[in-house]
Amino acid sequence: MTELVAIQDCYADEYAHCYGCGRLNDDGLKLKSYADGDETVCRFTPDPKYSGGYPGFLYGGMIASLMDCHGAATAWAAKARTEEQTVTRFVTASLKVDFRAPTPTNVEIEIRGRINEIKGRKVVVDLTVSAAGKLCAEGSAVMVQIPVNRQEG
Amino acid sequence: MTELVAIQDCYADEYAHCYGCGRLNDDGLKLKSYADGDETVCRFTPDPKYSGGYPGFLYGGMIASLMDCHGAATAWAAKARTEEQTVTRFVTASLKVDFRAPTPTNVEIEIRGRINEIKGRKVVVDLTVSAAGKLCAEGSAVMVQIPVNRQEG
Repeated sequence: MTELVAIQDCYADEYAHCYGCGRLNDDGLKLKSYADGDETVCRFTPDPKYSGGYPGFLYGGMIASLMDCHGAATAWAAKARTEEQTVTRFVTASLKVDFRAPTPTNVEIEIRGRINEIKGRKVVVDLTVSAAGKLCAEGSAVMVQIPVNRQEG
Repeated sequence: MTELVAIQDCYADEYAHCYGCGRLNDDGLKLKSYADGDETVCRFTPDPKYSGGYPGFLYGGMIASLMDCHGAATAWAAKARTEEQTVTRFVTASLKVDFRAPTPTNVEIEIRGRINEIKGRKVVVDLTVSAAGKLCAEGSAVMVQIPVNRQEG
């Protein structure tokens, strides 16, 4: 079942400024990710202005952005379930995207995340991007939790 | 020596709508890439609104976007030097980004591309992202040229 509170809305204020998903960035996209059983889900309908080279299809950078923000949220949610101390924020160590089919604009895109591995501060997240049930991109992100008292990234 | 005409300004009109680098996308970033000896270079100063979770640093999705658009341009330029027929446009098959250090906003970022391999319609490009001479991210992109008469991506 999809939970009602967005993962990004649980980030501390100091970490909530991301252009992609920060609730405190009024210029940004304000992406919202939710726990959904063993997975996480984020839904976003891209405006046609976010076109790739040829109109009607999303530019690759946005697809990577969606996977990056949702990957960080997926890692945060997994850690928040298991940690006793407050979870700070995850930054991306690496991101790999395999583009499988053109992703349309003006259609609801579904980004799904699933934990592949948790090892200390490092969390590996597998990700998919689909539109109308069709897989458009997939990949993985290696996310690393910011240590408490270190404030950059 | 850096050439004076931007690679993206050589794309045919039908392929010039990318939010990242299309000269015909008035809402977009209008990134410009240039041939520079054996390499290509793109310079871009990100507005502070493109913040990551913590203010003052660029969000990961933008770094991936810069590498994606510049990678496609690098592949185009390499093909344009060797092909007799008109080069259409490259789309991204895969993108890998390794984040090495936080990338500042409000500072000129330099993205460099270098051809790793050309095999038919496929071109592999190695990429770096630096700020004030410091490496912030590196990675590679597998780019595939759109066949003539196929108009999507």
